[in-house]
Amino acid sequence: MLPTFLNISNKVVPELIEQSETALAAAHSAQAAADTAMFTTNNLWIMVAATMVFVMHLGFSTLEAGFVRRKNVVNILFKNSMIIGIGLMTYWFVGFNLMYPGVNEGGFFVWPKFFLNPTPQDMTMAYGDYTYWTDFIFQAMFAATGATIVSGAVAERIKLNSFLIFATLFVMISYPITGFWKWGAGWLDELGFYDFAGSTIVHSVGGWAALAGIILLKPRSGKYTPKGIRAIRGHSIPLAAVGVFLLWFGWYGFNGGSVLNANPQLVSLVFTTTSMAAAAGAIGAAITSYIMFKTHDVTMVMNGILGGLVGITASADSVSVNSAVIIGFIAGILIPLAVSFFDKLKLDDPVGATSVHLVCGIWGTLAVAIFGNFDQGVGELSDQLIGILAVGAFSFTFAFLLFYILKITIGIRVSEEEEEKGLDICEHELPAYN
Amino acid sequence: MLPTFLNISNKVVPELIEQSETALAAAHSAQAAADTAMFTTNNLWIMVAATMVFVMHLGFSTLEAGFVRRKNVVNILFKNSMIIGIGLMTYWFVGFNLMYPGVNEGGFFVWPKFFLNPTPQDMTMAYGDYTYWTDFIFQAMFAATGATIVSGAVAERIKLNSFLIFATLFVMISYPITGFWKWGAGWLDELGFYDFAGSTIVHSVGGWAALAGIILLKPRSGKYTPKGIRAIRGHSIPLAAVGVFLLWFGWYGFNGGSVLNANPQLVSLVFTTTSMAAAAGAIGAAITSYIMFKTHDVTMVMNGILGGLVGITASADSVSVNSAVIIGFIAGILIPLAVSFFDKLKLDDPVGATSVHLVCGIWGTLAVAIFGNFDQGVGELSDQLIGILAVGAFSFTFAFLLFYILKITIGIRVSEEEEEKGLDICEHELPAYN
Amino acid sequence: MLPTFLNISNKVVPELIEQSETALAAAHSAQAAADTAMFTTNNLWIMVAATMVFVMHLGFSTLEAGFVRRKNVVNILFKNSMIIGIGLMTYWFVGFNLMYPGVNEGGFFVWPKFFLNPTPQDMTMAYGDYTYWTDFIFQAMFAATGATIVSGAVAERIKLNSFLIFATLFVMISYPITGFWKWGAGWLDELGFYDFAGSTIVHSVGGWAALAGIILLKPRSGKYTPKGIRAIRGHSIPLAAVGVFLLWFGWYGFNGGSVLNANPQLVSLVFTTTSMAAAAGAIGAAITSYIMFKTHDVTMVMNGILGGLVGITASADSVSVNSAVIIGFIAGILIPLAVSFFDKLKLDDPVGATSVHLVCGIWGTLAVAIFGNFDQGVGELSDQLIGILAVGAFSFTFAFLLFYILKITIGIRVSEEEEEKGLDICEHELPAYN
Repeated sequence: MLPTFLNISNKVVPELIEQSETALAAAHSAQAAADTAMFTTNNLWIMVAATMVFVMHLGFSTLEAGFVRRKNVVNILFKNSMIIGIGLMTYWFVGFNLMYPGVNEGGFFVWPKFFLNPTPQDMTMAYGDYTYWTDFIFQAMFAATGATIVSGAVAERIKLNSFLIFATLFVMISYPITGFWKWGAGWLDELGFYDFAGSTIVHSVGGWAALAGIILLKPRSGKYTPKGIRAIRGHSIPLAAVGVFLLWFGWYGFNGGSVLNANPQLVSLVFTTTSMAAAAGAIGAAITSYIMFKTHDVTMVMNGILGGLVGITASADSVSVNSAVIIGFIAGILIPLAVSFFDKLKLDDPVGATSVHLVCGIWGTLAVAIFGNFDQGVGELSDQLIGILAVGAFSFTFAFLLFYILKITIGIRVSEEEEEKGLDICEHELPAYN
Repeated sequence: MLPTFLNISNKVVPELIEQSETALAAAHSAQAAADTAMFTTNNLWIMVAATMVFVMHLGFSTLEAGFVRRKNVVNILFKNSMIIGIGLMTYWFVGFNLMYPGVNEGGFFVWPKFFLNPTPQDMTMAYGDYTYWTDFIFQAMFAATGATIVSGAVAERIKLNSFLIFATLFVMISYPITGFWKWGAGWLDELGFYDFAGSTIVHSVGGWAALAGIILLKPRSGKYTPKGIRAIRGHSIPLAAVGVFLLWFGWYGFNGGSVLNANPQLVSLVFTTTSMAAAAGAIGAAITSYIMFKTHDVTMVMNGILGGLVGITASADSVSVNSAVIIGFIAGILIPLAVSFFDKLKLDDPVGATSVHLVCGIWGTLAVAIFGNFDQGVGELSDQLIGILAVGAFSFTFAFLLFYILKITIGIRVSEEEEEKGLDICEHELPAYN
Repeated sequence: MLPTFLNISNKVVPELIEQSETALAAAHSAQAAADTAMFTTNNLWIMVAATMVFVMHLGFSTLEAGFVRRKNVVNILFKNSMIIGIGLMTYWFVGFNLMYPGVNEGGFFVWPKFFLNPTPQDMTMAYGDYTYWTDFIFQAMFAATGATIVSGAVAERIKLNSFLIFATLFVMISYPITGFWKWGAGWLDELGFYDFAGSTIVHSVGGWAALAGIILLKPRSGKYTPKGIRAIRGHSIPLAAVGVFLLWFGWYGFNGGSVLNANPQLVSLVFTTTSMAAAAGAIGAAITSYIMFKTHDVTMVMNGILGGLVGITASADSVSVNSAVIIGFIAGILIPLAVSFFDKLKLDDPVGATSVHLVCGIWGTLAVAIFGNFDQGVGELSDQLIGILAVGAFSFTFAFLLFYILKITIGIRVSEEEEEKGLDICEHELPAYN
């Protein structure tokens, strides 16, 4: 055998060692490059999703502007332009720290840190699938939504300054606290409450606040008369329709981005459940409203789409596409029923925000327990109910007290004369159309 | 030599073997990570592209709403809101299975499977560059387009229920069958017919159905009078302009997503050919319509942009940017010519859908044979003509028979009184503007 | 020791060599795959960003259409539909070559190449983080912006043909030359002038040309009367609001894409600074205009948002988020001040384009020197001032001379009668609303 050893020289062995070390280093370098590419793609998706959620603010603006009367259009646009500004500013000031304090920190009773101060480390993969600022801007785009939902419900009669104070405090304090309970790894999360992208944490939060507002504000004058309910029609159905489509578009970022990375399986499932629930919501609302009102009511179809979207939000990553169709269809059915129900209670909601965001938000959160593909112990009906009630109790109480304090101090309702003339002239000295 | 062997111990060799095995495993792991990153990026692009195609439905809605009269705006918005719902639902119910049955299956005579049932395997790279649900949702967004194109052409005089039945059956059956011929690897694909993103398979399909509809429906009353053609102006040019820009935006997803992955070379070429064809379409239509009508006709520029986009759709990945300019410019020239041509035939199309989608769809499909960079045997003029004629014959016949059956049963045209009063009041009891 | 050598056979050594060579090859293959994935992601982001910049053209269209009177709406839509077409065509014809000639080539005195002729190499990673066509289409979308800014300022009184000639030559020649000075690695870049995404190179360029135009055009009749300034209100505040939101959305592509790759740290910082500056701009303008005019002026909030966005554009990648808030807030304060200032000079700008793009463009460029995190020698105040003045002098002079030549030849202003009747009827024979 010895002669065959001759080619194994002292030279060969170190070369062999070096060569395989080189290969290992090259493999590690490739792995790092692949990880960076993946991190970049994940981060990119959450950023793009944030821009889609931003578009929802345009969607809300046009939806609400379309559904109010001509004389109150500038007012709603002013409110919604300010809300996105206020939402981003307060979330930067305190909201983000309050909602995501880190485990075992923060929450209701712990005073949060102010402003944001990420470390260089926070901008790397060590922070997760995206950077600190991506996290912030994606979450910040959600934060203002709560107030935007309220904006539509209290439209055409609320004092501008009171609303702006309400919006600031609600977005700054109330939304992050209940958000912390679930998404900040707080007690609802530990309990097993499941809410994927916020049927409860975002939509019903806005819906409860809207309910508090319309209870305290009372209906628009002339809405509920001794002769019955007078339909006060929106001034521009095309504008409202643009809003619905833009909201649907934005929801791909709202739900799709809530996967919190670009995982192909999950994000594509979420896109599909979201799409099918919206489609089924349109059909469900069209059929139900035709049966109820004997007409093809486009406003019901619009709100049916939105109801389907709100309904699927809690479970978009955890149900089958077939289940999503059922969830959306039922949400669509709920819309005309809820609109009639609130009208019977003389709770005047010009855009149907409570029907869409509160009723379908609750439905969607319950649907998790019915259709969700979970292991034992997550998203069970009891947990979902506790989450709905706890978040509802807090948000409603916060909003009610805040509106009540405003009511007994600076007032929340414009004068009858101002309501009659319209807020555009009285608050803004500018009609919407000239 | 022997003393030099001393450092090659039994310890060194297994270490060497292990070290190079470790390096190989690390390289394989890095390769898998890189493949996953690539799959994630490809999948992400097709999903984002799907959301852009979704925006086209908003674009069609506002374009068509802007081009009809005030009294028929709610009607068109109702139709278009329902079409996207119906399109997604029917594609989920049967369309996707009918259009993409797998090789040697499906098509016209093979009864398709109902509903969708992806395996876990379908959500992985094994399925292609994206997951099953990404495939579905991207294709589903295309499906409703055919009916949306028809919606504009038959506007202001069609019965709502008849249209909804037509849209459902056309999107559910006709569109997937001709789609299967090409994109489902059917006989047109085998023949060598080329249609990148659907000048024929999507746009002319809608255009042929629109033509069938307007032949059977007859013109709007007052359009063609003994004294000549009366221009019935759209009620809101800004709304229509918003539609054109949104359609252009959506086309980046329509064409760019049809690459079916995020290949940098191809997608960037497609973006550029698409952009330049739209730009050249605007210029071509502006010049031609100025020569023909001696005025700066913004509706011609708008439809020129859309004509350029439809024209480049068949070849966006296969022509040079210079060729794209020529294709778009000719499409722009065709628009005012086609509008005049259809008017001469007293074929009343309120939004110019047949000019845009049928005429420019045919032109774009022929342009493949003139400008396309293909090896011998693909996209030749004879194959393109066969595709145009076969798809046209099937789509036109299907739509004509369907509209005809509706006409002789429940009727397709509203009464003269309803047409006069407007569909918004008669079908929806809601004016668009209040 | 010898017996222990027995397992090192002639067979083992070549196997060892081969195995480690295989590992190295696999590592290189994985590295290439990771690089391709990264390239694909970077390229995808710049393409998606280009579509967002495209949306800004819709934003400008609706903003300007909303801010003019009913009788001039078709005219502004015609102009803006044509500008995007003209911008893409001229950038393809000569602009891209003029602006990015490669180092030591091109610029003002060197006659550029016409049309584009990329090599296959230009479509690969060798070209940078994206392909040649991605580079082109992203930059081309910027190019038309300058003319779009002018469009709003000269609205309601400029002759259409004169404006189209101006837009063509300005976008084709002037914009690429000053663009070359900085982004084409020209003398301003060598000097140390810093302008991340174009507060000066895009926005103030448009602002200076707008200023030249409104000086030569004179105010709209009836704007400045002996009795004082008459506010000429925009015809549709909702349309303008849609424009502002779409511009904000598009700015994520404008600024975010200007990172020129998908770097997670940088792009997420840019998204956040951009968002916060817009939010702070809204607040700053709301407060300042309330103090100045004692009303909640939604047009000031809108332009405050845009001012914040223009202001952050020069430094979005180089300032802290806290600084971005300050920059945006000051930009918001500047808006009502600038609007009043230009009104005092009787410079009539129907949409406030000079206040937004010129004043805040200058402010943003100066802010680089105040807040930018730069090493010594880049973005210093003196360099920033030189850049502002040089680009301003060139752009203003070019635009002034061009408008002046048009004025003394074919004329730039419509007749008093046409201005009174409106450009929609006189130039387009089509009212915006019917």
